[in-house]
Parts: sequence; structure tokens; C-alpha cells
Amino acid sequence: MKRVKTAVVGASGYTGQELLRILLLHPGVELVCATSRQYEGKALSDIFPRFRDVPGADLKFRGASVESILSTPPQAAFLALPHGVSVEYGRALVEAGVRVVDLSADFRLNDPAVYEEFYGKPHADVPLMQEAVYGMPEWHRDQIAHARIVGSPGCYPTSIILPLVPLLRAKLIEPGGIIANSLSGVSGAGRKADIAYHFCECNESMRAYGVPRHRHLSEIEQELSAAAGCPLRITFIPHLMPVNTGILTTTTAQLAPGVSLQHITDCLVQAYTTAPFVRLLGAGKPADTKNVTRTNFVDIGWTVDERTGRVILMSAEDNIVKGAGGQGVHAFNIMFGLPETTGLMLL
Amino acid sequence: MKRVKTAVVGASGYTGQELLRILLLHPGVELVCATSRQYEGKALSDIFPRFRDVPGADLKFRGASVESILSTPPQAAFLALPHGVSVEYGRALVEAGVRVVDLSADFRLNDPAVYEEFYGKPHADVPLMQEAVYGMPEWHRDQIAHARIVGSPGCYPTSIILPLVPLLRAKLIEPGGIIANSLSGVSGAGRKADIAYHFCECNESMRAYGVPRHRHLSEIEQELSAAAGCPLRITFIPHLMPVNTGILTTTTAQLAPGVSLQHITDCLVQAYTTAPFVRLLGAGKPADTKNVTRTNFVDIGWTVDERTGRVILMSAEDNIVKGAGGQGVHAFNIMFGLPETTGLMLL
Amino acid sequence: MKRVKTAVVGASGYTGQELLRILLLHPGVELVCATSRQYEGKALSDIFPRFRDVPGADLKFRGASVESILSTPPQAAFLALPHGVSVEYGRALVEAGVRVVDLSADFRLNDPAVYEEFYGKPHADVPLMQEAVYGMPEWHRDQIAHARIVGSPGCYPTSIILPLVPLLRAKLIEPGGIIANSLSGVSGAGRKADIAYHFCECNESMRAYGVPRHRHLSEIEQELSAAAGCPLRITFIPHLMPVNTGILTTTTAQLAPGVSLQHITDCLVQAYTTAPFVRLLGAGKPADTKNVTRTNFVDIGWTVDERTGRVILMSAEDNIVKGAGGQGVHAFNIMFGLPETTGLMLL
Amino acid sequence: MKRVKTAVVGASGYTGQELLRILLLHPGVELVCATSRQYEGKALSDIFPRFRDVPGADLKFRGASVESILSTPPQAAFLALPHGVSVEYGRALVEAGVRVVDLSADFRLNDPAVYEEFYGKPHADVPLMQEAVYGMPEWHRDQIAHARIVGSPGCYPTSIILPLVPLLRAKLIEPGGIIANSLSGVSGAGRKADIAYHFCECNESMRAYGVPRHRHLSEIEQELSAAAGCPLRITFIPHLMPVNTGILTTTTAQLAPGVSLQHITDCLVQAYTTAPFVRLLGAGKPADTKNVTRTNFVDIGWTVDERTGRVILMSAEDNIVKGAGGQGVHAFNIMFGLPETTGLMLL
Repeated sequence: MKRVKTAVVGASGYTGQELLRILLLHPGVELVCATSRQYEGKALSDIFPRFRDVPGADLKFRGASVESILSTPPQAAFLALPHGVSVEYGRALVEAGVRVVDLSADFRLNDPAVYEEFYGKPHADVPLMQEAVYGMPEWHRDQIAHARIVGSPGCYPTSIILPLVPLLRAKLIEPGGIIANSLSGVSGAGRKADIAYHFCECNESMRAYGVPRHRHLSEIEQELSAAAGCPLRITFIPHLMPVNTGILTTTTAQLAPGVSLQHITDCLVQAYTTAPFVRLLGAGKPADTKNVTRTNFVDIGWTVDERTGRVILMSAEDNIVKGAGGQGVHAFNIMFGLPETTGLMLL
Repeated sequence: MKRVKTAVVGASGYTGQELLRILLLHPGVELVCATSRQYEGKALSDIFPRFRDVPGADLKFRGASVESILSTPPQAAFLALPHGVSVEYGRALVEAGVRVVDLSADFRLNDPAVYEEFYGKPHADVPLMQEAVYGMPEWHRDQIAHARIVGSPGCYPTSIILPLVPLLRAKLIEPGGIIANSLSGVSGAGRKADIAYHFCECNESMRAYGVPRHRHLSEIEQELSAAAGCPLRITFIPHLMPVNTGILTTTTAQLAPGVSLQHITDCLVQAYTTAPFVRLLGAGKPADTKNVTRTNFVDIGWTVDERTGRVILMSAEDNIVKGAGGQGVHAFNIMFGLPETTGLMLL
Repeated sequence: MKRVKTAVVGASGYTGQELLRILLLHPGVELVCATSRQYEGKALSDIFPRFRDVPGADLKFRGASVESILSTPPQAAFLALPHGVSVEYGRALVEAGVRVVDLSADFRLNDPAVYEEFYGKPHADVPLMQEAVYGMPEWHRDQIAHARIVGSPGCYPTSIILPLVPLLRAKLIEPGGIIANSLSGVSGAGRKADIAYHFCECNESMRAYGVPRHRHLSEIEQELSAAAGCPLRITFIPHLMPVNTGILTTTTAQLAPGVSLQHITDCLVQAYTTAPFVRLLGAGKPADTKNVTRTNFVDIGWTVDERTGRVILMSAEDNIVKGAGGQGVHAFNIMFGLPETTGLMLL
Repeated sequence: MKRVKTAVVGASGYTGQELLRILLLHPGVELVCATSRQYEGKALSDIFPRFRDVPGADLKFRGASVESILSTPPQAAFLALPHGVSVEYGRALVEAGVRVVDLSADFRLNDPAVYEEFYGKPHADVPLMQEAVYGMPEWHRDQIAHARIVGSPGCYPTSIILPLVPLLRAKLIEPGGIIANSLSGVSGAGRKADIAYHFCECNESMRAYGVPRHRHLSEIEQELSAAAGCPLRITFIPHLMPVNTGILTTTTAQLAPGVSLQHITDCLVQAYTTAPFVRLLGAGKPADTKNVTRTNFVDIGWTVDERTGRVILMSAEDNIVKGAGGQGVHAFNIMFGLPETTGLMLL
């Protein structure tokens, strides 16, 4: 298999670590560059001892200048940077012919006004934001294949959008009454020294946060509105749970008149039968994060509450694999013409 | 302080253990009887080594016959038995003059048809079921004070009913659109050998279960309908989380026209200012189970999602204290004229 | 019960929090002062929401000047400060007639040379260090009763010293071959923002640290040498485990010639039969931290490995109760003539 | 790569699950048979939902008769059966020309008397037990290559034997004073319904068990005695910790006269430089299980306690990978002439 020269920009967080885990073992990747301001000059395996003695893990972190990255030189770059920082790299890399998968929120939205509303300042490169493809392979595969730059979906949005899109497109649910409750592992909060994420503050703790207007709403509503064919707004409530990784989302929506459980089942099956990483558990089967952690799968179960006329959708994924690095590599595989599951059949 | 001779019937599960923890240190209780078929003849501290050397913990488990219990003789009895078993003890104890606090579901409902719908068989003692008082001190204090038998609320229902009742009574929310997502620690599943609750099956796992028609819906809807003044149905989704104890419930409801966050705040403050175990965190403040575990407090936070016109209620409690044994002891204190917080100012 | 006016100096860490938990409910304590540079002016319950609505928890943190503390004025003061900071308070408080229980390492040692060897600088108040009593109630009760200042034992030392002292005094074990392996919960590392204690770095992780010369060796060897009647050195290996609180220590030692399991059992029983917080589990019974967390008990089990002639001692305690705040309150009770278990029968 | 037709006998426990995880993705394996009495007729992915949609995971569990296994027909068989059950399969499979890797204790020992002492009954096939090779690739590679049957090492023994063997062979440590403290995740207790392994009994719990004479001592002492060139006995203390997988072992031994830290370092480096799955962390570096979970690596750190003349060895592995299935597959790779790391470069 040909190997694509690949850079990871901002590789020292949990998302970066998980992305490196996948790329180090990916048969279609030659990792030529990993950047970290903090760890410049150290080997990947010095910072992430898990990687010690794995071929390629003796690569040294570089500083994060565009020149340094381009000198390696990469054909592809993953950006695992904070929101608002990726945008500083996008244009320079794209114009140098590097195909980019950005894992931040900088290239996920189409509408600059929505970006400003949710991220609190104008976007720094609106044309590139509007060119970028929302990197959800299940729904944007063809665009991803030809994209110069992909905005890889957020972790919560992936778990919320996937079960809803087919139902909204088929008009099986009312667009107005969607409520998504999501539970996330602590890796979702990032690898940073903060008393809020101290072991003793998270262990034996369950708490909501970021209500009522989490930033991820912007991309969720963008994709769901497109699927529904009309603008919609949802209520989204994220929670922090004492697990390392995993997102479990429970979404409720009002069924459209006359819609039965069987309609829901048929619609989901039709939508995802050939999707390699969406596993439909069947009606009445709840999803469990322990079956998807460290994999690129998202598991989806569903049921109908006949007493209230609502569908209940339950989706489980790993927040830093399907919800971040894995989904990004899936897009990368499509962009470079590799079989979709290359390097992603992780257990 | 006078000490009430007290029996605990069915003391070998997690609820029984927590109830014993409270009663052993309760200055108004003389523990005269604890029953367990499985552990008959062993000391409490043999089965629960945590209690070793605590005064009173050398009491020996008895068999569970009514005669044996009455011989001790108790003035009060807590029933920490499985659903469908408590009913076998209720009448005999009550008629012998023992005042009963039942922690099972057997005496929580008023309507025998609802009982049969949710528990799958006719109730075995409808008159006593209808006499029994729903043991939520915040809303039924006066009835509890004079009750012969109290049906102590379920763990999930407590966390759902408390924040909603004042809002429904004041008609600040629509009764039709309530959705409650609850997260429970594994103690809620009971102390039993079952591979589903093996450490490795629960740790690093998050999953929903029991959807869409959990039995607790029956008492939740009974109490909420009474508060709303009309029958209502809600969607309730329980989840199992990798913590020992704790319930976090996130409830959403549509605001009635013209209702603002301030109305919600004022209503909750008015309802619970004098309730010793309801702690109002204030608008915009999420609840965290780690602040209530092992206490009899329930913490309530709330916010309004202006974009969708919904209120978001967040409540945290310990499922086996405020959600079981602690709330039962609170009712006991009221029944026997003790200060409400006696033995319950647990940290 | 008379109530002793009490100050807690440095109340914002995990030890301080646990100490406050005990003191707020202690019937012989009137909490008149709690200091915190970081949280000055905030109520205890603002920083520790667990305490909200508990009587006394509306007390506001003060700044940490001696003048401010003395103005409250206290009869007793607990110092829950970092090592090297307590010494700044000791003399001023003692000379003002305040009886002091210090939870840091500043007043545990007798020998200034040992202090300097292990803590890296000369002690700032050698006379007061030498006056201070090592606050282990099981072995220094009479001295504690009359002490102006007590150096409360460290968490690891408590679990190691208690099972060994009677065996060394009775010469049942060789002083030369003692090895202590200790496992501690993460609260032992303190409440500080540090990536090493991030949830994801501790959960699903087990690791040793601080080998081979942890500072606690100094007080361990001081007490064990006194018991043995000769200088001895041990090997001590601390580990960090993914639990909030708890220490489990497994200690091995070579039996003296002719010593049997029965000799060990008899010796331990004789030493601790009347000690209210030492629970002897019996020969062959391992200790489990889950039975002692949040209590002031230390559980001790033991067995003999006939094949190698070694005794195996297993001790479990809560590192921030019996290993810190609880043991300190035990000393306080003795100092002020209160029944020893006052406020400490925690479950 | 040629694919070896492979059977897994007894595939429904945690070891079986982990072995299947490795074999399903192993490029040199064609999984033709998996047995389970309990799950006969169900697909692997029905019982282990993590495997759903993974190629090969639709294989159905068979009953466990030798005839059924041989009919598939396999060239290799892994036995992941309880101790005492594997022996029923060994001879029949071997005589049918199937090369066997047994993960139980049935084929690890050489001496029938030792087997009977530790396992409580005579071995049922002494000749085959004595023919079997102890499957530790680092020390028995050549014998493994030609073995008909391999007894794969136990989880605890692997972590204890690996750091000690080179030091004993080089006579750098005294054979008489070795003490090994091991901490294991709960998967080590097996996938069975037992209240002792209920989430609430293990979470926030730390406890020793199985002292003083755990069965694993038999194989540990067999291998260490061989390395030392004389019979030796050690003290071994296993503990149960609240993690899913992982073993951390801390071993102490007395240094031989004149031995320094540098001698230890040199000896370990020389022994393991070319071993693909032994990672030497360097002097003074503690091992952490979180870096090895789900991998086939064992990480080894070490230091010398100058004050007592002891070496401290710290080793971390995944108990069901390097300590079970992964080490077995390593032996399989050697037996079938595949590159050693095939299918085992797991992250």
C-alpha cells in the first residue's frame, strides 16, 4: 500500500495522542511530522510512554511553525489544535498543496454569522471555512473525496447527528421537539491541569455542564436543519462522567403522525446498512460505551415510547476515536483513495 | 431523646445496609431487630464489616417471620424488601400496632389498576395500599405524621418529582412535554450476583436500560398528575453509570407562555426555603452527585434554554439515602415527633 | 457538652475539607475560624458545596495571619498546611495559649538531623519540634493529654506503625527485614491542579512513586526504632491507586525464631483490645479499604507464610481520616478531656 | 501471509474474549472454531458486542467436544479453560496433530508432586505435562518453536519472573529474600457472577487475597529456582484493585555483596535488548499499567534502596494480554514460524 506522508499539528493532547495511536499503525501512512510547542525536541514515546518501542514512535516533536511543517514535507495534515488556532494553519497548508483534516471547530460551519454567535468573534478566514467540507463520511463522502480541507465533526455532534439525519430526511420525526442528553468521558475536557478534572473531583461524580448553549449546537443544528429541509433548534445537555473515554447520547423526538417503530427501524437500516462504522443494534437494544471504546464504531439502538409518541435514540461512540481522530482518519482514507476501513478496524 | 424500638426487615441489600448505617447512629432509635433469610444468626458486622465495633452492630440477623419480628417487639419497622414481598408484612405489622415505613414499591400507588399495569399482577392488599401515604416529606408531611404505613418514594422518582411539583402546581410549565433523563450508580441495581453488574461490565461503561416503560413511571406520573391537576405522561430514561451511589436527573419541560427564568427561580425558592434537605443551587448552577453522596440532601439547579423555550432542571441525590433509607428515616422522624433532621445530618 | 473554640488553619485542601467535615458535626467543637489565602471571604460551603446548609458551614474563610486567627479567639487550632509552613504558626499559637494539632510533618520528628536529611533544610524551630508529641493515641495517649502541640502522624506511617509496634516491642519479628508496600488513593496527592492527577492519568492506572526514599520513612523509622529498642531501617514503597481515599498497606517481616501465628495474634489482641479505632480482623483475614473509608477505623489482618517464615500484615485506613484529620481530632479529644470517640463514630 | 487454521477452546471468559480480539485481527490466523458450552450456537459478536461487524466475528460458538473441535479442522488450538479442564483436551488434540497453547495452569509445571501440592489432586496426564514447554518466549524460545504443547505462563508469574530471571542467573541478588507484591485488575478474577466482584464491592476498594500460598507460587518458584540454580521460595502477595485490566508488581530482593544499581541496569539491558515486548524504562523509572493495558508489552523499572541494600523491581503488564492471550499468541507465532510480533503490535 502506498504510504501518504502525514503531519499531525498539535499532537500533545488526548485527541492528538489517539490520532497518533491510529496513524502509527496505519499501513497507508508515513508519519513525517508531529508538532508540539510544549514538547519540541522530545520523542513521541517520551511523552506518551504507551508508544515506546512502536515503530515510528521515536519521531521527535517539532515546533509548530508552518515552515517547519512544510519542510518535512507532508501530503496530508491533521490539525489537532484548539478552536481558533487551526484557522492560522489552514490556508498556508492548503495553498502549499497539503490536504487538511481539521479536528477543531474552525472549519465545520458554513455560516459566518453562526460562527460568530457561538464562538464569540468573527471567523478569520471565511472563504476557506465555506470551502471546507463537513467531514462526516456517512453523509458527505463524495465531497470529502475531493476536498482540500475537511472540518471533522465534533464528538457530541457525531453521536447526535448520525441517528437523527435519516429520520429527519424521511420526515419520520417532528423537527421541533428534539432533546439530546449526552454523557462524556473526562478525556473530552482535554489534557490540561485544572482542578475541575482532578481524579477526586471527577471520580464518583456525575454532573451536567455548559447548559443551555454549548458551542456544538451550531454544527448540530446546521446538519440537522439541512436534513430536515428547514431551520430547527434542539436542546442539548452535555454531562461529565467518570470514565476515560466514551460518549453516550440519548435523544428523544416526537414521532410524526402515523409513524411506528417499524418505520424507524426500516429507515435506519436503509440509511446505514453499508456504512462500515455505524452498527445498528436493533429496536429495543440500548447502546453501551464499553463496546465501542477505542474503536471507530458508533452503536445505535432505538425504541418508541408508545405512551408519549416519542422515539428514543441511544448512540454510543468513543469521543476521541469516532468522535475525533478516527473519524478524521476515515475522511483521510476517502481523500486518498484508500479502502475506507484502512487502519481503523480497531479493537 | 426517647428511643423508638425499631426493626429493619430485609436488611442485607445495599438499601438495607445504608438504612442500618443511619439507624445505628440515630439518637432516637433503638435497633431491636434486623432480618435476613440468608444471614440469619450472623451479626450485622459480620456481613457488613464497615459496622464492626460500632455500638449496636453486634445485633444478630433474625429470620424474617412476622412472629419473630413482633417478638422483639418493635414500635416501628422499615421494610427493605423486594417489590411484592413487603405487602406480605404490611397488614400484620400495622395491625399489631407497628408503624411501618416501606421502601419497596408496594405501598406507593393509590390506583390498583396502575399497580397491575406496571407490576404485572393485582395488588395483594388494595385497602392498605390505598391507606398508605406517599412518604415524600416535602409534600406530604402532615399525612406522614399520622400514617400507620408509609410508602417511601423510589430513588428515581424522588429526583424527578421534587423539582417538578412546584412548577406544575404553579402552572409554569406545560404538563405535556416532560422528559427526564436519569443516571444512577450501580448500587441501584441491588446487591446480587449477576454478570451484568460485574465490575468489568460496569466500569468504563455507560448505558441506558429499562426503556421505554420503567416501573417507576407509575409513581412519578401519580404525583406529577396530582400536582398538575390533570393526568400527564412523561418520558423517563434511566441509565447505569460507573459510580457506587448517586442519581443525577436532567429534566426538560416546555415553559408556559410568558414564563421566565425568574419565575422559575421564585417558585422553587418559595417551595423549598424551609425544606431541610432540599438545597437550591441557584439559576445556572448544575448539580453534582459528589456533593450529595452519603447525605440526605437533594441538590437542585436549573436554567432556561431561551432558544427553545424549555426549562432544564438538574437534580442530584444519593439513590440509597435521599432516594431510599434516608428519606424513609425522615418520614420516621415525622411519624414519631422527632426533629426532622435527627440522625440525618450526614456528611 | 462544653464546646471548644477551634480554628482550622489551611482548610482548603482535601485534608482540610475532611477535617471540616468532622469538626462541623463534632458536639464538642465550636468552629470559630477557618483560613485560606485562596478563598478568603468565601463561605466554607461556597468552596465545599457538600457542606451547604450544614450548621456552621456559612463561616467565612479568613486570611491566614496569626493575628487574624488569634482574634477569633480559639482555644485549639488544627494546622492543615504544607510541610514547612506549619512551623511558622506553631510557636505563636502555642505561646498565645492555643493548643495545636499539626497535620503536617513539621512537628513529628525528634531529631533535627533526621528532619534535615529528609526535608532538605534545617528545622526552623527545633525546641518546639522536640517538645511536640507524636500524636498517635494508641501509643502516646498520656503525653498527648498534656501536650501544648501535637505532630499528628502521616497517613502512610499510621498504617505501617500500628501493626508493627506491638510485634517489635515483644521481639516477635526481626527488626532488619521489614518491607512495607502501601497503596494510596489520589486524595493523598493533594488538591492541586497537576496533569499527573488528571482523571484520565489516574483512572485505570496503577503506579509506584517516590521510591526508594519517601519522606515518611523518617517518622516511620523513628517510631519503629523506639519500639524495637534499636535503630532500624525499612523499605517502604508507596503506590498511587485509582480510588478517592484509602490506604492499604501490606507489610512483611521475618519472624523471630520460634514465633508462631498464635504468638502474633495474641500480641496484637493484647495491644489493641481497648483501642477504640483499631479493629483486629483476625488471623487470615485481609483488610479492605472499602470498610474503612470515611471512618476513623484502621482494620488490621495478618497471616504467617510458613514456607518462608514471614508474617504478613495487612492494614487499611482512610488516608484523610485515620491518616490525617480523624486522628488529629482523636488527639484533640484527648487533649481536651472529651470521650475519645466524640465526633469520630463516623460511618 | 499463510493463515493457520486456529481453534479457541473455552472462549467465553475475559481471557477468551481478549484472545479472540487478538486472533480476529491477526493476519496469520484463520479462526475456524470457538467453543463455549454456555453460548453454543450463538455468534461471537452476540456474546461480545464489541466484535460486531468485525470480519470473522459471525463465527458461531460450538460445543466443546474434541470431535467437534477436530472436525473444523484446526492446525492450532488455544485452550482458555479452567484449571483441571484443559488436561482433558491436551492429549487428544496433540495426538491429532494439533499444536496446542494452553492458557490454564495444567501444563506449566514439570514436577507432578508440586502440581499436587498446589492444585490439590494428582495431575491427570503427567507425561504430557512433562513434555509441555513453559511458554515464556523471552526464556524458552527455542523449545517453544518445536513444542507440540505449550503451557502459557500465568499473569502474576509473568510480571514476577521476567525482571528476576536475569538477576538470579547473574547472581546479583540473594535468592532467599524475594518478596513480590502484585496488584491485579478485576478481570483477573474471571467473568463470573459472584457478589465479590460486583461493581460496588470492588470500586473504591483495595484488598489483598489468597495469602499466603497462592497457586501461582508453584510456577514462579519453578522458573526462579531454575534461574538461580538452586531451590528458592518467595513470598507472594496478590491484591485486587479497581481497574479492569493490568497487573503492577513490586518485587524486592536483597542485593548480593558489592552489587550496585549499575550492575542491575546492565544486566537487565543485556537480557532484554532484543526482546520485542519487554520495555526497560530505566533506573528510577516506575512502571504504570496505563501504558501497557491492551498491549502485549511488559514495562520494567527498577531502583536500589541504598539504605537497606535492596533492589526494587517494578513491572507492569496487561493481565489478559501479556499475562494471558497475548503471550500465548507470541508463542503461537514462534511455533508457526511467523514474525514474533505478528498481530501483537497492539495499542
